[in-house]
Amino acid sequence: MTHLSPTIALENDEENDLFNDGAVRLRNPHIAEMDQDILYHLALGSGSHDLVEMFGDIRFVCMGGTPKRMEGFANYIMDEIGYKLPPGATLLDISLQSYRYSMYKVGPVLCVSHGMGIPSVGILLHEVIKLMYHAKCKDPVFFRLGTCGGIGIEGGNLVITESAVDGMSRPYLELPVLGELQRRPAILDKQLAQDLKNLRTESDPFSVTVGKTMCTYDFYEGQGRLDGAFCEFTNEDKVRFLHKIYEDNIVNMEMESLCFAALCHHAGIRGAVICVTLLNRLHGDQVSASKETLGLWQEYPQHLVSRYIKKQMGLPVLVPQRNHPQVVRSPRKHKIVKQESASFE
Amino acid sequence: MTHLSPTIALENDEENDLFNDGAVRLRNPHIAEMDQDILYHLALGSGSHDLVEMFGDIRFVCMGGTPKRMEGFANYIMDEIGYKLPPGATLLDISLQSYRYSMYKVGPVLCVSHGMGIPSVGILLHEVIKLMYHAKCKDPVFFRLGTCGGIGIEGGNLVITESAVDGMSRPYLELPVLGELQRRPAILDKQLAQDLKNLRTESDPFSVTVGKTMCTYDFYEGQGRLDGAFCEFTNEDKVRFLHKIYEDNIVNMEMESLCFAALCHHAGIRGAVICVTLLNRLHGDQVSASKETLGLWQEYPQHLVSRYIKKQMGLPVLVPQRNHPQVVRSPRKHKIVKQESASFE
Repeated sequence: MTHLSPTIALENDEENDLFNDGAVRLRNPHIAEMDQDILYHLALGSGSHDLVEMFGDIRFVCMGGTPKRMEGFANYIMDEIGYKLPPGATLLDISLQSYRYSMYKVGPVLCVSHGMGIPSVGILLHEVIKLMYHAKCKDPVFFRLGTCGGIGIEGGNLVITESAVDGMSRPYLELPVLGELQRRPAILDKQLAQDLKNLRTESDPFSVTVGKTMCTYDFYEGQGRLDGAFCEFTNEDKVRFLHKIYEDNIVNMEMESLCFAALCHHAGIRGAVICVTLLNRLHGDQVSASKETLGLWQEYPQHLVSRYIKKQMGLPVLVPQRNHPQVVRSPRKHKIVKQESASFE
Repeated sequence: MTHLSPTIALENDEENDLFNDGAVRLRNPHIAEMDQDILYHLALGSGSHDLVEMFGDIRFVCMGGTPKRMEGFANYIMDEIGYKLPPGATLLDISLQSYRYSMYKVGPVLCVSHGMGIPSVGILLHEVIKLMYHAKCKDPVFFRLGTCGGIGIEGGNLVITESAVDGMSRPYLELPVLGELQRRPAILDKQLAQDLKNLRTESDPFSVTVGKTMCTYDFYEGQGRLDGAFCEFTNEDKVRFLHKIYEDNIVNMEMESLCFAALCHHAGIRGAVICVTLLNRLHGDQVSASKETLGLWQEYPQHLVSRYIKKQMGLPVLVPQRNHPQVVRSPRKHKIVKQESASFE
């Protein structure tokens, strides 16, 4: 394959990832030549939308698996940073028409669902990185807020990924491109990981571990579970494998970090993966915590990321800027209004 | 790794995939020993739900990318097979609480969204295969109804996958399992593919091609597109690659068939992948057909699958069993009722 250019070669210098003016530059000379760029899976386009007007102020991009979780995070971060919508307005799923991802914007924070697995988060990253470029965003920080299986860590604790490896313990994303295997190192920003870890407080009900993450292409056999439709290994094989990776300092397993790290790094974008453990895989396969407990745990990554965002915005880190929609002056009287209205339905 | 068996070894005989009584047997001796099996991503469990009562009559499992498309298909197939819900009832998203997949049941037809990419469809297949086992379903047929890029085939035509290859043209799904690479052949049922093709009629606005599918882990670089966030090859490189795979008889590209074929084959389940082409990749990268056209095209795979299901059920193949909800006797008078009601809102 003909490798392009001096430009690309220069930008491929891994030491040169952070660009001087903070703008997101694409490692793709073709985009600038295109009449319009359709971000197919986001239901947006550079010709159809004023992307600078819509997204030019984005500084933080937060991704997570499900639309539900990201809608919840959007409402949470709105309270946390005290972002006000005009009276009578509510958040809109910007990508609703794509039926692929859900996207919410809360001032400088973009909240997007990424689905499950590397291909799904990969498509999203390509399109969100292009979105940052078209919108002329400066130095955005990307976060994945996820769930994972802990390796030697009990359920309900946080893991921040230092670097990611695949199921063969290889520290790069391998992808066939035009029939040749391309490899991209899965490196994350160490300072960002440390900054996030330092935002834990004594009163938090979770621990925070910075460590190596194994990222797999499958949830069952690929993560050594005995409870898939197929299993051709014994419990002893599984335990031996999990203890081996534990000794190799792998602290958790999930399904997106390898791609997230590789594409952020390649784009020169600072990225962090913060996951809550749903169980300790050294003790089992099935997630058995209650729905309520799981719901609570899934908010833990949001707490750390929210504190980081508030700190960057110069807001007090541990105080929500607003406890309830600011248009409601008295929650008690609001409750009476709702009751009275209901009786006239 | 200790390979289990003699049972597993026997079942691994690829010639022996179709079991005598038609029941779905799991190639996993551990499931039978489990107290309960939580199908985590479907919001179902063998302990919490009577899966035989709920799903014992399923004969056809239809999967597709988005919740929206599968909800549409569920309503379409309900009309096609003349399935009646009791007055006042509507279809329920059975997996709503999982926030991962959407699942609808229409008599013997299960309609499920699978998200994007191999990991996402893989998790679903593990859990749906286990669901078939717990529900004691007999000889279910699995379909993936999808979209794809055609290689030498214009947009708006159908491709039925004969066999699938990965981005390196390898005819198997490769997955790290306990640190070793496991390979499973990506074979689909040739007779089923032919039977589906034969259901095309002269009046259909689409052609039907049975051929080889390339299944990739990425939509942009992985499919040789020039319009991702990154691109390190030239247009000439791309064209050369696409023509090479065209000469190798690859007729389309998508992102799930490899896993679908490999897991169905391994489970001894007959499966078919029917995709509509959204564009001819020999002529471009971006999908530029209008939303309306794309919506229409995405119904084409549904037509073939619906005819197959009707034929298996002994229904007339080309006649919908019902054109509108059967509780409405006169659509014209129904419209008047709606108008009159609206004026009293």
